[in-house]
Amino acid sequence: MIEVYAFSTPNSVKVPIALEELGLAYDLKAVNVRKGEQKAAAFVALNPNGKVPVLLDDGFILTESAAILIYLAEKTGKLLPSDGEGRARVFEQLFFHASGLSPAFGNAGFFKRSSPEPQPIAEARFTTEAERILGLLDTKLADQAFMAGEAFTIADIAHFGWLWRRQFPGLTLDDRANLSRWYETVAARPAVQRAIARVEALVEAPTSAA
Amino acid sequence: MIEVYAFSTPNSVKVPIALEELGLAYDLKAVNVRKGEQKAAAFVALNPNGKVPVLLDDGFILTESAAILIYLAEKTGKLLPSDGEGRARVFEQLFFHASGLSPAFGNAGFFKRSSPEPQPIAEARFTTEAERILGLLDTKLADQAFMAGEAFTIADIAHFGWLWRRQFPGLTLDDRANLSRWYETVAARPAVQRAIARVEALVEAPTSAA
Repeated sequence: MIEVYAFSTPNSVKVPIALEELGLAYDLKAVNVRKGEQKAAAFVALNPNGKVPVLLDDGFILTESAAILIYLAEKTGKLLPSDGEGRARVFEQLFFHASGLSPAFGNAGFFKRSSPEPQPIAEARFTTEAERILGLLDTKLADQAFMAGEAFTIADIAHFGWLWRRQFPGLTLDDRANLSRWYETVAARPAVQRAIARVEALVEAPTSAA
Repeated sequence: MIEVYAFSTPNSVKVPIALEELGLAYDLKAVNVRKGEQKAAAFVALNPNGKVPVLLDDGFILTESAAILIYLAEKTGKLLPSDGEGRARVFEQLFFHASGLSPAFGNAGFFKRSSPEPQPIAEARFTTEAERILGLLDTKLADQAFMAGEAFTIADIAHFGWLWRRQFPGLTLDDRANLSRWYETVAARPAVQRAIARVEALVEAPTSAA
Protein backbone atom coordinates (compact mmCIF):
# COMPACT_ATOMS: atom_id res chain seq x y z
CA MET A 1 0.00 0.00 0.00
CA ILE A 2 1.38 3.38 -1.06
CA GLU A 3 0.46 6.52 0.87
CA VAL A 4 1.51 10.03 -0.13
CA TYR A 5 1.43 12.99 2.25
CA ALA A 6 1.18 16.05 0.06
CA PHE A 7 -0.50 19.34 -0.77
CA SER A 8 -1.08 21.44 -3.86
CA THR A 9 2.60 22.44 -4.07
CA PRO A 10 5.33 22.33 -6.74
CA ASN A 11 7.18 19.43 -5.11
CA SER A 12 4.09 17.52 -3.98
CA VAL A 13 2.51 17.21 -7.42
CA LYS A 14 5.51 15.35 -8.81
CA VAL A 15 4.76 12.22 -6.80
CA PRO A 16 1.11 11.75 -7.85
CA ILE A 17 2.13 12.44 -11.46
CA ALA A 18 4.67 9.61 -11.29
CA LEU A 19 2.21 7.27 -9.60
CA GLU A 20 -0.48 8.03 -12.18
CA GLU A 21 2.01 7.56 -15.04
CA LEU A 22 3.10 4.23 -13.53
CA GLY A 23 -0.44 3.04 -12.88
CA LEU A 24 0.17 2.52 -9.16
CA ALA A 25 -2.70 2.95 -6.70
CA TYR A 26 -2.12 5.32 -3.82
CA ASP A 27 -3.84 7.01 -0.93
CA LEU A 28 -3.29 10.78 -0.99
CA LYS A 29 -3.30 12.50 2.40
CA ALA A 30 -3.57 16.28 2.81
CA VAL A 31 -0.93 18.19 4.76
CA ASN A 32 -2.23 21.76 4.60
CA VAL A 33 0.96 23.79 4.44
CA ARG A 34 -1.07 27.04 4.39
CA LYS A 35 -2.09 26.13 7.95
CA GLY A 36 1.44 25.03 8.90
CA GLU A 37 0.53 21.36 9.28
CA GLN A 38 3.96 20.34 7.97
CA LYS A 39 5.33 21.52 11.32
CA ALA A 40 2.88 19.43 13.40
CA ALA A 41 4.43 16.72 15.57
CA ALA A 42 2.66 13.87 13.77
CA PHE A 43 4.05 14.99 10.43
CA VAL A 44 7.55 15.82 11.69
CA ALA A 45 7.68 12.24 12.98
CA LEU A 46 7.41 11.18 9.32
CA ASN A 47 9.77 13.85 8.00
CA PRO A 48 12.00 15.68 10.49
CA ASN A 49 12.66 18.22 7.73
CA GLY A 50 9.00 19.29 7.91
CA LYS A 51 8.34 19.27 4.18
CA VAL A 52 5.95 17.61 1.78
CA PRO A 53 5.84 15.25 -0.05
CA VAL A 54 6.44 12.07 1.92
CA LEU A 55 5.94 8.57 0.50
CA LEU A 56 5.06 5.53 2.60
CA ASP A 57 5.42 2.20 0.84
CA ASP A 58 4.46 -0.66 3.15
CA GLY A 59 6.06 1.13 6.07
CA PHE A 60 9.14 2.40 4.23
CA ILE A 61 9.17 6.18 4.67
CA LEU A 62 10.87 8.30 2.00
CA THR A 63 11.23 12.09 1.68
CA GLU A 64 12.60 14.40 -1.06
CA SER A 65 10.41 14.45 -4.15
CA ALA A 66 13.17 13.57 -6.62
CA ALA A 67 14.38 10.66 -4.47
CA ILE A 68 10.78 9.42 -4.48
CA LEU A 69 10.67 9.71 -8.29
CA ILE A 70 13.83 7.61 -8.63
CA TYR A 71 12.55 5.06 -6.10
CA LEU A 72 9.28 4.61 -8.00
CA ALA A 73 11.03 4.48 -11.39
CA GLU A 74 13.48 1.82 -10.20
CA LYS A 75 10.71 -0.15 -8.46
CA THR A 76 8.78 -0.40 -11.73
CA GLY A 77 11.54 -0.23 -14.33
CA LYS A 78 9.83 2.70 -16.07
CA LEU A 79 10.41 6.45 -16.72
CA LEU A 80 14.20 6.07 -16.26
CA PRO A 81 16.53 4.53 -18.86
CA SER A 82 18.56 1.45 -17.97
CA ASP A 83 21.83 2.42 -19.70
CA GLY A 84 24.43 4.43 -17.82
CA GLU A 85 24.56 7.47 -20.08
CA GLY A 86 20.79 7.65 -20.46
CA ARG A 87 20.33 7.46 -16.70
CA ALA A 88 23.00 10.12 -16.19
CA ARG A 89 21.09 12.55 -18.42
CA VAL A 90 18.01 12.09 -16.23
CA PHE A 91 19.97 12.50 -12.98
CA GLU A 92 21.65 15.61 -14.40
CA GLN A 93 18.27 17.23 -14.91
CA LEU A 94 16.93 16.08 -11.54
CA PHE A 95 19.85 17.81 -9.82
CA PHE A 96 19.71 20.86 -12.08
CA HIS A 97 16.09 21.16 -10.97
CA ALA A 98 16.78 20.51 -7.28
CA SER A 99 19.84 22.73 -6.92
CA GLY A 100 19.10 25.33 -9.59
CA LEU A 101 15.53 25.84 -10.72
CA SER A 102 13.75 24.96 -7.49
CA PRO A 103 15.65 27.29 -5.11
CA ALA A 104 15.60 30.09 -7.69
CA PHE A 105 11.83 29.81 -8.16
CA GLY A 106 11.13 29.37 -4.45
CA ASN A 107 13.30 32.28 -3.34
CA ALA A 108 12.15 34.57 -6.16
CA GLY A 109 8.60 33.95 -4.98
CA PHE A 110 9.48 34.50 -1.32
CA PHE A 111 11.20 37.83 -1.89
CA LYS A 112 8.48 38.98 -4.29
CA ARG A 113 5.53 38.01 -2.10
CA SER A 114 6.40 36.97 1.43
CA SER A 115 9.40 38.91 2.72
CA PRO A 116 8.43 41.15 5.67
CA GLU A 117 10.40 44.01 4.07
CA PRO A 118 11.65 44.53 0.50
CA GLN A 119 15.04 43.01 -0.22
CA PRO A 120 15.63 44.27 -3.75
CA ILE A 121 19.05 42.72 -4.28
CA ALA A 122 17.77 39.35 -3.12
CA GLU A 123 14.63 39.58 -5.25
CA ALA A 124 16.64 40.51 -8.33
CA ARG A 125 19.24 37.81 -7.65
CA PHE A 126 16.70 34.98 -7.65
CA THR A 127 14.46 36.37 -10.39
CA THR A 128 17.45 36.84 -12.70
CA GLU A 129 18.64 33.33 -11.93
CA ALA A 130 15.17 31.86 -12.57
CA GLU A 131 14.99 33.63 -15.94
CA ARG A 132 18.49 32.40 -16.84
CA ILE A 133 17.43 28.83 -16.04
CA LEU A 134 14.27 29.14 -18.15
CA GLY A 135 16.50 30.27 -21.01
CA LEU A 136 18.79 27.26 -20.61
CA LEU A 137 15.84 24.86 -20.64
CA ASP A 138 14.30 26.59 -23.65
CA THR A 139 17.57 26.23 -25.54
CA LYS A 140 17.86 22.56 -24.57
CA LEU A 141 14.34 21.86 -25.82
CA ALA A 142 15.15 23.30 -29.24
CA ASP A 143 17.02 20.06 -29.96
CA GLN A 144 15.10 17.41 -28.07
CA ALA A 145 11.50 16.57 -27.22
CA PHE A 146 11.91 16.13 -23.47
CA MET A 147 14.26 17.26 -20.71
CA ALA A 148 16.58 14.25 -20.82
CA GLY A 149 16.25 13.30 -24.49
CA GLU A 150 13.51 11.97 -26.75
CA ALA A 151 11.57 10.06 -24.10
CA PHE A 152 9.34 11.32 -21.28
CA THR A 153 11.09 10.54 -17.97
CA ILE A 154 11.04 11.50 -14.31
CA ALA A 155 13.20 14.50 -15.31
CA ASP A 156 10.13 15.96 -17.02
CA ILE A 157 7.99 15.28 -13.96
CA ALA A 158 10.49 17.10 -11.73
CA HIS A 159 10.69 20.21 -13.91
CA PHE A 160 6.93 20.23 -14.43
CA GLY A 161 6.24 20.65 -10.72
CA TRP A 162 7.70 24.14 -10.45
CA LEU A 163 6.78 25.22 -13.97
CA TRP A 164 3.16 24.40 -13.13
CA ARG A 165 3.50 26.83 -10.19
CA ARG A 166 5.45 29.52 -12.07
CA GLN A 167 2.96 32.23 -11.06
CA PHE A 168 4.29 32.14 -7.47
CA PRO A 169 7.67 33.60 -8.52
CA GLY A 170 5.91 35.71 -11.15
CA LEU A 171 7.43 33.96 -14.16
CA THR A 172 5.93 33.19 -17.54
CA LEU A 173 6.74 31.02 -20.54
CA ASP A 174 6.18 33.96 -22.91
CA ASP A 175 8.90 34.11 -25.56
CA ARG A 176 10.05 30.60 -24.59
CA ALA A 177 8.59 28.72 -27.54
CA ASN A 178 10.33 25.41 -26.95
CA LEU A 179 9.62 25.36 -23.25
CA SER A 180 5.98 26.32 -23.92
CA ARG A 181 5.62 23.45 -26.39
CA TRP A 182 7.12 21.04 -23.83
CA TYR A 183 4.87 22.37 -21.06
CA GLU A 184 1.70 21.96 -23.11
CA THR A 185 2.74 18.45 -24.14
CA VAL A 186 3.32 17.37 -20.55
CA ALA A 187 0.25 19.15 -19.18
CA ALA A 188 -1.92 17.34 -21.75
CA ARG A 189 -0.94 13.87 -20.56
CA PRO A 190 -3.95 12.18 -18.92
CA ALA A 191 -1.86 11.00 -15.96
CA VAL A 192 -0.67 14.55 -15.33
CA GLN A 193 -4.22 15.88 -15.45
CA ARG A 194 -5.44 13.22 -13.02
CA ALA A 195 -2.61 14.02 -10.59
CA ILE A 196 -3.27 17.76 -10.72
CA ALA A 197 -6.96 17.21 -10.05
CA ARG A 198 -6.15 15.07 -7.02
CA VAL A 199 -3.67 17.51 -5.44
CA GLU A 200 -5.92 20.50 -6.13
CA ALA A 201 -8.73 18.69 -4.31
CA LEU A 202 -6.49 18.54 -1.23
CA VAL A 203 -6.93 22.27 -0.67
CA GLU A 204 -10.53 21.65 0.40
CA ALA A 205 -9.93 18.22 1.92
CA PRO A 206 -10.07 17.42 5.62
CA THR A 207 -6.55 17.26 6.98
CA SER A 208 -5.02 13.96 7.89
CA ALA A 209 -1.51 14.56 9.19
CA ALA A 210 -1.96 16.89 12.13
CA MET B 1 40.06 8.49 -20.05
CA ILE B 2 38.34 10.57 -17.40
CA GLU B 3 38.81 14.34 -17.28
CA VAL B 4 37.39 16.61 -14.58
CA TYR B 5 37.04 20.37 -14.97
CA ALA B 6 37.00 21.77 -11.47
CA PHE B 7 38.32 24.26 -8.94
CA SER B 8 38.75 24.39 -5.19
CA THR B 9 34.99 24.69 -4.59
CA PRO B 10 32.38 22.84 -2.50
CA ASN B 11 30.85 21.08 -5.48
CA SER B 12 34.08 20.47 -7.39
CA VAL B 13 35.82 18.54 -4.61
CA LYS B 14 33.10 15.88 -4.54
CA VAL B 15 34.14 14.44 -7.90
CA PRO B 16 37.86 13.92 -7.15
CA ILE B 17 36.89 12.42 -3.78
CA ALA B 18 34.70 9.86 -5.54
CA LEU B 19 37.36 9.12 -8.14
CA GLU B 20 40.04 8.66 -5.47
CA GLU B 21 37.73 6.43 -3.41
CA LEU B 22 36.96 4.35 -6.50
CA GLY B 23 40.61 4.11 -7.57
CA LEU B 24 39.92 5.63 -11.00
CA ALA B 25 42.64 7.65 -12.73
CA TYR B 26 41.68 11.13 -13.91
CA ASP B 27 43.09 14.29 -15.36
CA LEU B 28 42.11 17.33 -13.29
CA LYS B 29 41.78 20.60 -15.20
CA ALA B 30 41.59 24.00 -13.52
CA VAL B 31 38.69 26.34 -14.19
CA ASN B 32 39.54 29.36 -12.08
CA VAL B 33 36.15 30.62 -10.96
CA ARG B 34 37.79 33.52 -9.10
CA LYS B 35 38.77 34.81 -12.53
CA GLY B 36 35.38 33.98 -14.07
CA GLU B 37 36.71 31.24 -16.33
CA GLN B 38 33.47 29.28 -15.90
CA LYS B 39 31.86 31.93 -18.14
CA ALA B 40 34.45 31.58 -20.92
CA ALA B 41 33.17 30.32 -24.26
CA ALA B 42 35.32 27.18 -24.21
CA PHE B 43 33.92 26.15 -20.86
CA VAL B 44 30.31 27.10 -21.60
CA ALA B 45 30.56 24.81 -24.61
CA LEU B 46 31.08 21.97 -22.11
CA ASN B 47 28.47 23.19 -19.63
CA PRO B 48 25.96 25.81 -20.82
CA ASN B 49 25.08 26.36 -17.14
CA GLY B 50 28.58 27.79 -16.59
CA LYS B 51 29.38 25.82 -13.43
CA VAL B 52 32.04 23.43 -12.25
CA PRO B 53 32.48 20.49 -11.98
CA VAL B 54 32.18 18.83 -15.37
CA LEU B 55 33.14 15.21 -16.06
CA LEU B 56 34.30 13.92 -19.43
CA ASP B 57 34.40 10.13 -19.77
CA ASP B 58 35.60 9.11 -23.21
CA GLY B 59 33.71 12.00 -24.75
CA PHE B 60 30.57 11.71 -22.64
CA ILE B 61 30.07 15.09 -20.95
CA LEU B 62 28.24 15.21 -17.63
CA THR B 63 27.45 18.15 -15.33
CA GLU B 64 25.91 18.44 -11.83
CA SER B 65 28.19 17.06 -9.12
CA ALA B 66 25.64 14.68 -7.61
CA ALA B 67 24.71 13.27 -11.03
CA ILE B 68 28.42 12.64 -11.57
CA LEU B 69 28.63 10.85 -8.22
CA ILE B 70 25.76 8.53 -9.18
CA TYR B 71 27.24 7.94 -12.63
CA LEU B 72 30.60 6.92 -11.16
CA ALA B 73 29.00 4.77 -8.44
CA GLU B 74 26.85 2.92 -10.97
CA LYS B 75 29.77 2.54 -13.39
CA THR B 76 31.82 0.78 -10.71
CA GLY B 77 29.14 -0.78 -8.51
CA LYS B 78 30.56 0.91 -5.42
CA LEU B 79 29.56 3.61 -2.88
CA LEU B 80 25.83 3.09 -3.60
CA PRO B 81 23.78 0.12 -2.33
CA SER B 82 22.09 -2.21 -4.81
CA ASP B 83 18.81 -2.72 -2.94
CA GLY B 84 15.93 -0.33 -3.53
CA GLU B 85 15.51 0.98 0.01
CA GLY B 86 19.25 1.37 0.57
CA ARG B 87 19.59 3.28 -2.69
CA ALA B 88 16.62 5.47 -1.78
CA ARG B 89 18.31 6.50 1.49
CA VAL B 90 21.34 7.67 -0.51
CA PHE B 91 19.25 9.54 -3.10
CA GLU B 92 17.23 11.15 -0.28
CA GLN B 93 20.43 12.62 1.16
CA LEU B 94 21.77 13.66 -2.25
CA PHE B 95 18.61 15.69 -2.87
CA PHE B 96 18.46 17.02 0.68
CA HIS B 97 21.99 18.29 0.04
CA ALA B 98 21.25 19.67 -3.43
CA SER B 99 17.93 21.35 -2.65
CA GLY B 100 18.46 22.17 1.04
CA LEU B 101 21.97 22.40 2.39
CA SER B 102 23.73 23.61 -0.75
CA PRO B 103 21.50 26.63 -1.56
CA ALA B 104 21.30 27.57 2.13
CA PHE B 105 25.09 27.53 2.50
CA GLY B 106 25.71 29.25 -0.81
CA ASN B 107 23.18 32.01 -0.26
CA ALA B 108 24.15 32.53 3.38
CA GLY B 109 27.71 33.07 2.19
CA PHE B 110 26.63 35.40 -0.62
CA PHE B 111 24.54 37.68 1.60
CA LYS B 112 27.20 37.65 4.32
CA ARG B 113 30.16 38.38 2.08
CA SER B 114 29.29 39.31 -1.48
CA SER B 115 26.04 41.27 -1.64
CA PRO B 116 26.64 44.83 -2.87
CA GLU B 117 24.39 46.12 -0.06
CA PRO B 118 23.23 44.48 3.17
CA GLN B 119 20.06 42.43 2.86
CA PRO B 120 19.46 41.51 6.48
CA ILE B 121 16.27 39.52 5.97
CA ALA B 122 17.89 37.49 3.23
CA GLU B 123 21.06 36.91 5.24
CA ALA B 124 19.04 35.77 8.27
CA ARG B 125 16.78 33.58 6.14
CA PHE B 126 19.63 31.52 4.71
CA THR B 127 21.78 31.47 7.84
CA THR B 128 18.85 30.25 9.93
CA GLU B 129 18.05 27.61 7.33
CA ALA B 130 21.68 26.45 7.20
CA GLU B 131 21.78 26.12 11.00
CA ARG B 132 18.50 24.21 10.96
CA ILE B 133 19.93 21.79 8.40
CA LEU B 134 23.09 21.28 10.45
CA GLY B 135 20.86 20.41 13.39
CA LEU B 136 18.93 17.85 11.35
CA LEU B 137 22.14 16.18 10.19
CA ASP B 138 23.57 16.18 13.70
CA THR B 139 20.44 14.46 15.00
CA LYS B 140 20.55 11.90 12.18
CA LEU B 141 24.16 11.06 12.96
CA ALA B 142 23.31 10.32 16.59
CA ASP B 143 21.85 7.02 15.39
CA GLN B 144 24.00 6.06 12.43
CA ALA B 145 27.65 6.23 11.38
CA PHE B 146 27.16 7.84 7.96
CA MET B 147 24.61 10.01 6.18
CA ALA B 148 22.66 7.16 4.57
CA GLY B 149 23.23 4.43 7.14
CA GLU B 150 26.19 2.41 8.44
CA ALA B 151 28.25 2.49 5.23
CA PHE B 152 30.21 5.31 3.62
CA THR B 153 28.45 6.26 0.37
CA ILE B 154 28.26 9.04 -2.18
CA ALA B 155 25.79 10.76 0.20
CA ASP B 156 28.73 11.40 2.53
CA ILE B 157 30.83 12.74 -0.34
CA ALA B 158 28.06 15.16 -1.31
CA HIS B 159 27.56 16.56 2.19
CA PHE B 160 31.32 16.72 2.78
CA GLY B 161 31.83 19.17 -0.09
CA TRP B 162 29.95 22.05 1.50
CA LEU B 163 30.85 21.16 5.09
CA TRP B 164 34.50 21.36 4.05
CA ARG B 165 33.77 24.93 2.89
CA ARG B 166 31.60 25.93 5.86
CA GLN B 167 33.71 29.02 6.55
CA PHE B 168 32.27 30.72 3.46
CA PRO B 169 28.78 30.99 5.01
CA GLY B 170 30.39 31.54 8.41
CA LEU B 171 29.18 28.27 9.93
CA THR B 172 30.88 25.97 12.42
CA LEU B 173 30.44 22.45 13.74
CA ASP B 174 30.75 23.67 17.34
CA ASP B 175 28.11 22.04 19.56
CA ARG B 176 27.36 19.51 16.82
CA ALA B 177 29.12 16.52 18.34
CA ASN B 178 27.76 13.88 15.97
CA LEU B 179 28.35 15.93 12.87
CA SER B 180 31.88 16.80 14.06
CA ARG B 181 32.66 13.12 14.61
CA TRP B 182 31.36 12.30 11.11
CA TYR B 183 33.33 15.18 9.56
CA GLU B 184 36.60 14.12 11.17
CA THR B 185 36.02 10.50 10.12
CA VAL B 186 35.44 11.48 6.49
CA ALA B 187 38.24 14.07 6.41
CA ALA B 188 40.71 11.43 7.67
CA ARG B 189 40.09 9.06 4.76
CA PRO B 190 43.21 8.90 2.58
CA ALA B 191 41.19 9.28 -0.62
CA VAL B 192 39.56 12.43 0.72
CA GLN B 193 42.93 13.88 1.66
CA ARG B 194 44.36 13.13 -1.78
CA ALA B 195 41.38 14.77 -3.48
CA ILE B 196 41.58 17.90 -1.34
CA ALA B 197 45.30 18.24 -2.07
CA ARG B 198 44.62 18.00 -5.78
CA VAL B 199 41.84 20.59 -5.88
CA GLU B 200 43.74 22.98 -3.62
CA ALA B 201 46.67 22.78 -6.04
CA LEU B 202 44.36 24.05 -8.78
CA VAL B 203 44.34 27.53 -7.22
CA GLU B 204 47.94 28.01 -8.34
CA ALA B 205 47.68 25.90 -11.49
CA PRO B 206 47.81 27.24 -15.03
CA THR B 207 44.28 27.44 -16.39
CA SER B 208 43.10 25.03 -19.01
CA ALA B 209 39.53 25.80 -19.92
CA ALA B 210 39.59 29.38 -21.13
